[in-house]
Amino acid sequence: MMKGFASDNYAGVSPEIMEAIAKANLAEHQGSYGADEFTGRAVGMIKEIFGAPDAEVFFVMNGTGANVTALQTMCRSYEAVVCTEMAHINTDECAAAEKFIGGKLLYLPSKMGKLNIDQIRPLLGGRGEHQALPRVISITQATEVGTLYTVEEIKAFAEFAHENGLYLHVDGARIANAAVSLGVSFKEMLTDTGVDVVSFGGTKNGMMMGEAVVFLNPELARDYRFVRKQGMQLLSKMRYVGAQFEAYLSDNLWYKNARHANMLAQKLGEKLSKLDGVALMCPVEANGVFVELPREITSTLQERFPFYIWNEETNAARLMVSFDTTEVEVNEFVQMAEELIG
Amino acid sequence: MMKGFASDNYAGVSPEIMEAIAKANLAEHQGSYGADEFTGRAVGMIKEIFGAPDAEVFFVMNGTGANVTALQTMCRSYEAVVCTEMAHINTDECAAAEKFIGGKLLYLPSKMGKLNIDQIRPLLGGRGEHQALPRVISITQATEVGTLYTVEEIKAFAEFAHENGLYLHVDGARIANAAVSLGVSFKEMLTDTGVDVVSFGGTKNGMMMGEAVVFLNPELARDYRFVRKQGMQLLSKMRYVGAQFEAYLSDNLWYKNARHANMLAQKLGEKLSKLDGVALMCPVEANGVFVELPREITSTLQERFPFYIWNEETNAARLMVSFDTTEVEVNEFVQMAEELIG
Amino acid sequence: MMKGFASDNYAGVSPEIMEAIAKANLAEHQGSYGADEFTGRAVGMIKEIFGAPDAEVFFVMNGTGANVTALQTMCRSYEAVVCTEMAHINTDECAAAEKFIGGKLLYLPSKMGKLNIDQIRPLLGGRGEHQALPRVISITQATEVGTLYTVEEIKAFAEFAHENGLYLHVDGARIANAAVSLGVSFKEMLTDTGVDVVSFGGTKNGMMMGEAVVFLNPELARDYRFVRKQGMQLLSKMRYVGAQFEAYLSDNLWYKNARHANMLAQKLGEKLSKLDGVALMCPVEANGVFVELPREITSTLQERFPFYIWNEETNAARLMVSFDTTEVEVNEFVQMAEELIG
Amino acid sequence: MMKGFASDNYAGVSPEIMEAIAKANLAEHQGSYGADEFTGRAVGMIKEIFGAPDAEVFFVMNGTGANVTALQTMCRSYEAVVCTEMAHINTDECAAAEKFIGGKLLYLPSKMGKLNIDQIRPLLGGRGEHQALPRVISITQATEVGTLYTVEEIKAFAEFAHENGLYLHVDGARIANAAVSLGVSFKEMLTDTGVDVVSFGGTKNGMMMGEAVVFLNPELARDYRFVRKQGMQLLSKMRYVGAQFEAYLSDNLWYKNARHANMLAQKLGEKLSKLDGVALMCPVEANGVFVELPREITSTLQERFPFYIWNEETNAARLMVSFDTTEVEVNEFVQMAEELIG
Repeated sequence: MMKGFASDNYAGVSPEIMEAIAKANLAEHQGSYGADEFTGRAVGMIKEIFGAPDAEVFFVMNGTGANVTALQTMCRSYEAVVCTEMAHINTDECAAAEKFIGGKLLYLPSKMGKLNIDQIRPLLGGRGEHQALPRVISITQATEVGTLYTVEEIKAFAEFAHENGLYLHVDGARIANAAVSLGVSFKEMLTDTGVDVVSFGGTKNGMMMGEAVVFLNPELARDYRFVRKQGMQLLSKMRYVGAQFEAYLSDNLWYKNARHANMLAQKLGEKLSKLDGVALMCPVEANGVFVELPREITSTLQERFPFYIWNEETNAARLMVSFDTTEVEVNEFVQMAEELIG
Repeated sequence: MMKGFASDNYAGVSPEIMEAIAKANLAEHQGSYGADEFTGRAVGMIKEIFGAPDAEVFFVMNGTGANVTALQTMCRSYEAVVCTEMAHINTDECAAAEKFIGGKLLYLPSKMGKLNIDQIRPLLGGRGEHQALPRVISITQATEVGTLYTVEEIKAFAEFAHENGLYLHVDGARIANAAVSLGVSFKEMLTDTGVDVVSFGGTKNGMMMGEAVVFLNPELARDYRFVRKQGMQLLSKMRYVGAQFEAYLSDNLWYKNARHANMLAQKLGEKLSKLDGVALMCPVEANGVFVELPREITSTLQERFPFYIWNEETNAARLMVSFDTTEVEVNEFVQMAEELIG
Repeated sequence: MMKGFASDNYAGVSPEIMEAIAKANLAEHQGSYGADEFTGRAVGMIKEIFGAPDAEVFFVMNGTGANVTALQTMCRSYEAVVCTEMAHINTDECAAAEKFIGGKLLYLPSKMGKLNIDQIRPLLGGRGEHQALPRVISITQATEVGTLYTVEEIKAFAEFAHENGLYLHVDGARIANAAVSLGVSFKEMLTDTGVDVVSFGGTKNGMMMGEAVVFLNPELARDYRFVRKQGMQLLSKMRYVGAQFEAYLSDNLWYKNARHANMLAQKLGEKLSKLDGVALMCPVEANGVFVELPREITSTLQERFPFYIWNEETNAARLMVSFDTTEVEVNEFVQMAEELIG
Repeated sequence: MMKGFASDNYAGVSPEIMEAIAKANLAEHQGSYGADEFTGRAVGMIKEIFGAPDAEVFFVMNGTGANVTALQTMCRSYEAVVCTEMAHINTDECAAAEKFIGGKLLYLPSKMGKLNIDQIRPLLGGRGEHQALPRVISITQATEVGTLYTVEEIKAFAEFAHENGLYLHVDGARIANAAVSLGVSFKEMLTDTGVDVVSFGGTKNGMMMGEAVVFLNPELARDYRFVRKQGMQLLSKMRYVGAQFEAYLSDNLWYKNARHANMLAQKLGEKLSKLDGVALMCPVEANGVFVELPREITSTLQERFPFYIWNEETNAARLMVSFDTTEVEVNEFVQMAEELIG
């Protein structure tokens, strides 16, 4: 398939990750279900990079699994999870959260992918048992349209949540891109701000599969082993996830991959926005470029460089830049667009 | 407690209903779980009044039970129910639908309580299995703010639904008030328009408890006995629900009660709307009056005539008129409001 | 329908109960969803009769609703409820517990309806997250085959449960019959023994509908209002349940009804067991007589006195005696059996 | 970790599988969520090896995911799945089936891991909606204790199921070992016998992760894409599962691995059973050896060769042989046991 900008899931995996997997295969027999040496080491590395020695860390199989099982530890079926209308948990996980929690997602309109505390305030309290009351705020960092919450904003969410007896969850499918872009550590962005639980993803940044659920609030992890198992997220040969995370967090691989993708997304956004009839839908803050294109050039461009239209009405394209996208590809795409616009 | 306008659930039951219950008690032993003579007769009467000999009719215990078990027959967990943001199933049933179906309510902004087909069209199709796609449209008649869908509008919903492989559900907690106000029969409003399933309520119109789920599309009823039982909605001594429905549908009791409440709601709305600083939030089309009141008179009024504020921002009150509300009470309320406004 | 011994649900309601319902209808407007004076008083009476001023008491709509919502407060989806194979929750509630809890019933063979601590011991501990571990023991008093746990046995279950971090639930659909038969108070049988939650039923003993969930361990009640609402068990016009419980607990109505039924069951059991080819399946300890009948007389008997066969293999009949069964009926049944046996 | 006989999940992956994964990484961008060339080819190979061109085949992430999502397509929440007490779905998946289906597992005692049609017959019919009635029979091939159903037995189950409106599911976590041992093809064992859905596992036979759900009854697959997604079993970079299955089914890898493990299990069983005080618990028919050991030698043996005790009472050990177990290891184990027994 032609390389393009359709999804950061279309890419393969970083060579370093593949090497780590192959190496893990030489380790003869290993305890299953996480009782292997690779998983043990990777958990330790995550705690360290989060500066959170008391955190609890578990590996699951994919992003939906991470989000849904994480949320289940934070709320009961008669409580609600507040999120944006475009949150991945609301629009791209086929109601897995509703099914697994047996409860409600309270979705709210967003401003360029971001939620606002003022939207949540009126939802608290409520009329007794007639309504499922909010227990969790779930934000996505970077958001589904490639924007970012600042460290201060995350901190404000956590404080607001805790003052009101709520928890804060971060869907971090692209958390590495966010940290690189903000120029902060995971510790500064997530631990020091008071986030309760993070879905810590790597698949969109060069890993093969497997995500981590990081309980910065370790009390919430008490029964998580059971939640994960019942959620069908426990891999038997877990070493192959552990080994990936080890490699991902070694030698700054996560950082290099995310920096590369962010940097090319910046370039792509900048160059495209200078073309006639092209306008950015949102600022480019991570590895996604959301840009309104002239309708007539779209399908020709897509044939050469696969990508999706995010908003049919405005003909806004979603261009995802991967760790393996090259500067040549970015330039060719821009050039082709320029020529088509004429 | 002082009689007021807080809820049509604050009223007791019509004397005719109470008499029927007492009479049912004289019938010695009766088969349980619906195998009694009262239930049999009441089911027949509902089919007749709906002009739907092939319909399947079942009794459940309350309105939430009727709605949720009805919806469960129409969709699977990976499918969605479309409704308004203010639908009772969305805001007043503590996520029972989400829990019991294990799925999603797709709630949309409403225009004075009503849904619009144009809002639903873009939700169809979708991006494959990533989203829970709509399978049911659920509308409330009369709506939660006392407005009505016309017969033509209901018909259009049914046609749109069926053309797109969807079902149409009507939450009829106040369906009698709607029929009376529109001047149509249940047959004309629900059967002839093509509605699939109706939650046919009587509690808010003079019954004690018990609602009917009416499957105008009888195929959907195939497994309903099991759904009802698993939904904890099967009463053992069902005769006491059957007997109520018999009385409710005899001698036009349902009609008289609803006509009375509607008529007084009309008067209440008309008179209030003439007062300074008072404005109707919606037209009065059933037994609810939604009216913006001067903030400073609210609590004094509430002390004498209990009622709820529906919208804190606009200070819109919800004034529900019951089958047992008297014209004197309506007049006294208006007079007191007038005096307080001064 | 011919009166017989098919079910204690085939009977109507005690005249005192019916009178109380009618009287409650004269009370003009009452707060809905339990905010009425009848419910308030009935809750107080239950606390008093249980000798448990700190208990939390809530009304629901039927026995399945009481059991399932009670269990949901005691366990999470990845935990299990231990019960007998013949427990009502296991065989007569259409997997409502599994659906609503989203978890497992661990059912064990019983000895004449009763569970034994030695059966449960090996289920504790387990192999980590791979199994749903027991969190609740649910026993039925009187059991589904009319036998009883002694006060000492209940106490032993509670102690065993609490020593192992479990809870004890009692399905008390026929709890009045049990108390009368054991000659103890609800306080002695349930509060003093350390039971956590009781499904306190009255429908099978002369009430119309409505059961109470009694949290003797009040911590478990913390979120129960939400569980009940989401479980579709919250009646709007609750006064009609409250009024029933008031009457049921006044003037020893519960006691008189149960004593009457138990006494006639005793007589029925004694007399039948003297007939040729008839043998009691279990001792008669409450209001149920489980008795093996000659196969050839069964259908003729059933035509005159409806009853069910409990066990097809042994042709054991289940004969339920109601509060309204008469001594004449018992005698006629025995006489007819005798004549048929010849 | 010392190689032993603890689990066929302790092993790594076959070199051929690892190579295929590495090679798949060179394929630049590939459609995600199964729209890649590897998945397409692997699906075709499975259809071919099953001799079932109309079958529908999907990949999921692990065995629990395969079983539970497969079962969800075959039954509704008010229906039951019949299985053995020791079925993996009953004892090792933390009530995932109950949670996800929202329904009941009807577990029955087994005879050496196997279910019998005569046990199921009395469960059919039932008392109307009060019980969750069986809709699926789920058998495990090879069973959890290493025994096998014959082709005739499977065929009889399928016929019985279909005559009674039920479906037949096969948990095939060790299906390759079964086919090799019976000397039949997957077609003969599963397609020709009339099985509806198979959980087709490879992880325990040399793969890394990923299982296939094979719908031999393709109607059941209609909504499966949604079930899989909502079940959190859809991998984004699916090519790495597809590539594994391609390698697994090429050059008879599945056959060679299973044959090797079976053969060594046979040897292990034969040799152990000749020792004093050692007795096979079940015949060795696949790659598991269940054998009662003298209690006093157990812990010393376990230190050198990790394994689990399956039955504490009889001190029966579960010895699992993997594709990478060597004859030397088998011999050393037997020798050590022999010496310890003295």
